Formats: sequence, structure tokens, C-alpha cells
Amino acid sequence: MEFVTGEVVSKSMDLQEFIACAGSDRPVCLEGAIHSIRNMGEIAFIILRRQCGLIQTVWEDQKTNMDISQLHDGDYIRAEGTVRLEPRAVHGRELCIRTITILSRTSAPLPLPLAKWKLNTSLETKLNLRPVSLRNIRELSRFRIQEGVVRGFRDFLYSQGFTEIHTPKIGAKGAEGGSNIFKLSYFHKPAILEQSPQLYKQMMVGVFDRVFETGPVFRAEKHNTRRHLNEYTSLDFEMGYIESFLDICRMETGFLQHTMKFLEKNYSDSLKLLGITLPKVDQIPYVRFDEAKELVSEKYQRKIRNPYDLEPEEESLIGKYFQEEYGSDFVFVTHYPSKKRPFYAMDDPEDSRFTLSFDLLYKGLEVTTGGQRIHDYQMLLGKIESRGMTTEGLETYLEAFRCGMPPHGGLGIGLERLTMQILGEDNVREACLFPRDLNRLEP
Amino acid sequence: MEFVTGEVVSKSMDLQEFIACAGSDRPVCLEGAIHSIRNMGEIAFIILRRQCGLIQTVWEDQKTNMDISQLHDGDYIRAEGTVRLEPRAVHGRELCIRTITILSRTSAPLPLPLAKWKLNTSLETKLNLRPVSLRNIRELSRFRIQEGVVRGFRDFLYSQGFTEIHTPKIGAKGAEGGSNIFKLSYFHKPAILEQSPQLYKQMMVGVFDRVFETGPVFRAEKHNTRRHLNEYTSLDFEMGYIESFLDICRMETGFLQHTMKFLEKNYSDSLKLLGITLPKVDQIPYVRFDEAKELVSEKYQRKIRNPYDLEPEEESLIGKYFQEEYGSDFVFVTHYPSKKRPFYAMDDPEDSRFTLSFDLLYKGLEVTTGGQRIHDYQMLLGKIESRGMTTEGLETYLEAFRCGMPPHGGLGIGLERLTMQILGEDNVREACLFPRDLNRLEP
Repeated sequence: MEFVTGEVVSKSMDLQEFIACAGSDRPVCLEGAIHSIRNMGEIAFIILRRQCGLIQTVWEDQKTNMDISQLHDGDYIRAEGTVRLEPRAVHGRELCIRTITILSRTSAPLPLPLAKWKLNTSLETKLNLRPVSLRNIRELSRFRIQEGVVRGFRDFLYSQGFTEIHTPKIGAKGAEGGSNIFKLSYFHKPAILEQSPQLYKQMMVGVFDRVFETGPVFRAEKHNTRRHLNEYTSLDFEMGYIESFLDICRMETGFLQHTMKFLEKNYSDSLKLLGITLPKVDQIPYVRFDEAKELVSEKYQRKIRNPYDLEPEEESLIGKYFQEEYGSDFVFVTHYPSKKRPFYAMDDPEDSRFTLSFDLLYKGLEVTTGGQRIHDYQMLLGKIESRGMTTEGLETYLEAFRCGMPPHGGLGIGLERLTMQILGEDNVREACLFPRDLNRLEP
Repeated sequence: MEFVTGEVVSKSMDLQEFIACAGSDRPVCLEGAIHSIRNMGEIAFIILRRQCGLIQTVWEDQKTNMDISQLHDGDYIRAEGTVRLEPRAVHGRELCIRTITILSRTSAPLPLPLAKWKLNTSLETKLNLRPVSLRNIRELSRFRIQEGVVRGFRDFLYSQGFTEIHTPKIGAKGAEGGSNIFKLSYFHKPAILEQSPQLYKQMMVGVFDRVFETGPVFRAEKHNTRRHLNEYTSLDFEMGYIESFLDICRMETGFLQHTMKFLEKNYSDSLKLLGITLPKVDQIPYVRFDEAKELVSEKYQRKIRNPYDLEPEEESLIGKYFQEEYGSDFVFVTHYPSKKRPFYAMDDPEDSRFTLSFDLLYKGLEVTTGGQRIHDYQMLLGKIESRGMTTEGLETYLEAFRCGMPPHGGLGIGLERLTMQILGEDNVREACLFPRDLNRLEP
């Protein structure tokens, strides 16, 4: 009988190994995609692309087993030879090729100039050709940074005693209500796609005290703006035994602090490549919803049209205000009006027109909604009744509260929006591998 | 202006702090749910439940601010006092309560005896009351272990240079085909729920070399068995620059080795509580599909009915065989018949009736399907044509291959199945927080 052990041996060196063996006679093997070829006649520079970066290789006439004319941008090859120091090459080294093996060929010229520093192609074209356009190293670097944000979120919450959960995305009914819900048939029963793990994560606070989930959520909103996606990745947490909704803001600030450090430490290549300066998050101001409206109304001479709602332009001005006055990219706007928050939001005991809730604005864009939730069974029933809602479909949720729940609260962060703001992009689709919007269902 | 810093201060101590301050006069505060009350008249033992474990507190008549009759199983309280050593208490210490504050009350007796060691309740009842039944510490411990499996998967793959991706769950068409797909209307366009991130992760191999995703997948299968869920969490990876499909098996073996060590180190409490012995994974045997069928046919005198399919009973017997003959809980069954594998599977160049693919069986249950994929554009077109499929809906996928793709392969692991087998449970629903099956869409 034959056995597999856990050892994975790769023929190709990785970048660190490659860097380490310059100047020795050690035979070196590199596999990669041909990023570009600069043909000088007697010699040619073939730049190989791997996720870890670009590597320079040199083809010399008569010294390599293959003619340069047989190679094309986009071909995947294995190049074998030795490494020599070359100050003009990226990483200060290059591979002198002796043998080339073709791993896979392109079947036609590439549809985009992938080796260019910037693609200079419309977003529409980039999205239509996503698996190709992302081969440009600046394009793909965005999603390396997005990975870092998700890792930072999870690592920080694990360290704070949170348990990771996986909740269902197909549900029986949109308990949070609203018309913005995708419907489907589930074995001849009406079903929906969850617009948030909200009720599930609350139920799980009664079990694990603190929980989080990173997963897709679905919103059938008919907005087609630069800020909206109909499917996105939500970073959600919910924590029990809080004293105040500010505990949630503190936990989010801690996450941001951890994550910015984490990105700096582990994703510095991508940050440098994209020229990104990470925001300062040592402290984040917080301001009441009604005060924030007044502050910007005063400073920017803008009339308050609706005291119970924030218009996108107002969000943007609040962001501007806190940048100008306090040098902060972030601001927590607290105490949103009750009528704008769902039934489970905890009203402010001092003024029930407002809730113990908040949004986090990042450069004037809402990236988080959160707050304290009602934990008392009778209060929850009262709120449901006063809203004229039915408890149908909420039976199990309510049973959890009937059996006791600790004071708790939580939040949901839109991963793509947060990434977009870190990247300094102005369309959320730039921060989503395969966006879904009103007009886009493919690829 | 007021500011939030990242410091989250909790009034309640955690278990480690509690253990550290025994014997001192330091005032201690603990918050938790009342797991059980043992009332001896003059004194009463109140066991508090937190996710980190159970803690004993002692109420003494006249010395506490509240009468014991006011407290009930399931209430959430804050208990303040001092800690003393008590060898008979769990953790060897107890809190002598001076002040109790009610955080939240149950509104009725608990529907299940949560404090019992085993719930002894039907699976059906447990699932109907999920947010309550999980408050039993054995029930919740299963999902701590599940968390460890997912962390192990991610940590190992990060260390191996994989990039984490998030792919859409709503798609335009079921390119993998089959009738087992949930359909929905997406702004008046026909859409489906993805049954796997397969095509997306392949496309991303051309970008990131190695990618993984942990997320929900949806299968409209009409099976109602102990092994099937209609929505489950899939641990998926796909890696480029492989030499053989065995590289995928090696990577999975490495993941299992890492994860078993990780569980032992970080989740030993939960493992002990459930009496779980982790499987040995230092090496895993692999055997061809046709050979495996013959081996069990011979040893267990079972006639081979269909040479191109594995029946569940055969899977189970293969598991038994490798346990008996090689002491292994795991076995890779390789070279599945082409007609049983999707179009993108790489046929064995030595015998195109079979593929360079595999399933991993764990105690006789399939927990993984994987293999090498076709990376050559022309070969892929040929396979699609020979199957009588259309390329409609596959345009972007094919464009990625037209622009070149490295040799690659990957796998998908059913998280709930893997967890179920680690736990030694015989129904996959025991390893899913909120299962979705033919009859269950709630809670």
C-alpha cells in the first residue's frame, strides 16, 4: 500500500529561496507566467509573474533550449538555470536560463496590457474580464489587502474570546422585514436569502457570550450607486455582557488598531505597490446623530431637511468636518432615530425617539452599523407589538429571550466598503472580486 | 469632543483572572447565566455558566443582598464578592457572593434540563430549540471544535502561501450543470445559488497561484439522510503549479496534521469534555477506485454491482478495510471514473475512462472531493464538446484558460461532515448550528 504524508514539495522555488541562492552554482527552478518579454536580440529579459511578485530571468541565444520566438506573454513556463546578482533587476538578482519547459500556452494574444503599471481600462471592461484583468499586479494587490482586513478581524476577535459561527443563508422569512429581500422556492416552500446574520448571532450570544461571522449577505436593493452591492461580505460580531453600546465601538476601534498594525507588518508590499497610507486609529471621535447634523449644517451652511435621516451628502460632510476639526478619518455617529432602526435596537431610556446605536463613517462613508440590542423578553415583545409586527417566524428567536439573554450588542461591517476606503477607491466594485449589482450577475 | 480608544474593559473577570485571584481579598465580579442552583438552606451553590466554562459561587443567608428564592436557572446575574480556595469546586475555587445584580431574567422555566451532563433529548427537539439546547455545555463544545477545524484550515493555508477569496453565491447559471440547483429571480433575471465556488477558485488560480475560501454552498438535493445538508460550509482550496493530483492529497494531509495538533493545543477542554480522541494522520493510504472496490469485494464477500460507482455501503466497507488492515481512519480513493466527474476534471492520460481525482473517506464517509483539473484551453473545449455541453455561461471562465493557466487542482471539504466524524456523531445535523434539509428551513 502507498501512503501520502503531509509534505508538499514544489519544484519551483519561492521568492525567498530564490533570493537566498544568488551567486551560488546551485541549480534553480522557477515556474511562473510570462509577465513580459524584452527581446534585445542576443539576449532577452523574461519577467515571470507569481503571486509573491515579479522575477527577472534572462534568455541567451544558443544557451537556452528554446528559441525566444516560441514564447509569448501569458505563457506559463518552468525556467531552470542559476542565479546571479544584477543590481538593475527587481530583487537585485536574475535567473540565467538554461532550460525552459512550457507548462501551458496562451491560445491568443492577451486582451489587456497586463504588464502595464496601470491598466487604464474602464471598470466595466475590467469586471467583464475579471480573471484576466486581476493578473495585473496592482489589481490583484487590492485583494491581498482585503485578505489582511479579514484576517485582522478574525485574529483580533479570537484574541478577545469570540467564537466563530456559521449561520444559514437560506431562511424561512425575512424577520427583519423590508422589501429588499431575495426570494426563492425551497422545495416548494417560500424562502429568502438572509440580508444579515443578525437574529442568528444574537441567539448565539446566549450560547457563546461573544460570536462573530464573516460571510455573504444579500440585499435586493434597487440602488445602483458606487457604494452599493447586492451581495457583499459582512464582518459581523455580537457580544454579551456589555455595559453600554460604547463597548461595541471600543471593540471595533480595537479591531481597526489591530488590523492597521497587521497590514503594516504583513502586507507592506501590497501597501507600497498601491501607495497606500493607512489611517490613524488610535482614537475615534463619537458624536450624536442630531449634533452631527447641526455641526455640519452650521459649518457648511446646509439646511437640515429631515431631522430623522442622514443624506449621503450629509454623511460625506460629517466625514469632512471630523477630518478638518480633529484630523480623524473615522467618526462614530451615535443615537440614530428609532424609526430608522430595526425592532431589536435598544431605545435610549432617556429619550425613546433615539436608539443606543451607531454608524461608523470612514471618510464620510458608512462602513458599519451597530448598537445595543434589546435583551429583555417583555421589552422585545412590546417593541414588536408597538411596531405592528407579527411574531410569526420569530418563535425560536423569542424563545431564546424567554430563556434569558445577557445585555448585548454588535455590529456589521461591509468588507468591500471598508477595503474601498482603505484603498482610496471611489467605487465599491473595485474592492469586490465578482460584484453583483442591478445589472451584473456575471462573471 | 469625546473619543473612543480601543480599550474594552469588562466588569466581569474571565476565568483566568478568576483563578489567579483566589485567596486574596481583591473584590471580584463575575457575570454569567445561572447554570444550576443547589439550595442547602443556609447556603446555596450557584453555578454560573460562561463560554469559558462553569464557575462555582456561594450564596450565604444574611450575607448576600438578595434572597435565594428570587433566583432561577437561566437568569443572568452579576455576582460580586471574594474568591476562596475550595478543592471540591470546579477549578478548585469559589466566589463568596456579597452582592447580586440581576442582568436579565428568564420569563418561564427552561424547556430543557440544560445543566444535565447529557441532554437526552431527541435531535428534532434540540434543533427546534437550537438557541436554548446549545446552552448545554456538551452541546456547545461541538461547535468550539468546529471553530478549531476552520481556524486550522485557514492558518495552515495562509502558511502555505494561499490567498483567501470571497466569491459570489448568486450566479447566472449552473455551469457545473445538474438539477440540484436552487433557482431564484435576480431583478427579473433567472439566477441560481452556487453549489460550489469551483469555477471561481479555478479562475483565481491564474491570479493568486493558490487560493482558498470558507463559505456556504447550496445543493437542492432531495436526499434526506444522516449525511446530507442542503446548505453547508465548504472548505475549498485550489492550487497552481502542481506536478500531480497527489500534491492536493499531500496538502490536505498537511492540513489535517496541522489541525489535529492545533485542536489538541487550543481546544483540549472541549475535546476532554466530549471524550474525543483525535485520529492519527501522520500518513494516509491511497488506493485506486477500482482496486478499492475489489479489495472490499474480496474481503467482505460483496459482489460489485456497478464498476463505475461507489455505493454508500461500499464506502463504509472501504473505511472498515483500511481501519482493519492499516489502522487508518482515512483513505484517499483515487482515479474516479470520468463519467462520475465534472467536465473540468483531468482525465488520466493512461486511461481516459478514469480521472486524476480522489475522494477522502474518513471512517467510511466521504468528506472531501478533489483532483487535478484541465488547464489547457483546447483540451477543455474538447471535453465540453464531447460531453455535449454548451459554452454558454462559461465565457469568462474559458477566457481565463485562453489567456493561459498553470497546471492546477484542488478540493472541497464538507465542514459539517468532517466535524461530525471527529465528534463521532452519526448525524451531520449534530455538527451544524442551524441545519437546512428537505423538511427544515427553521429556525
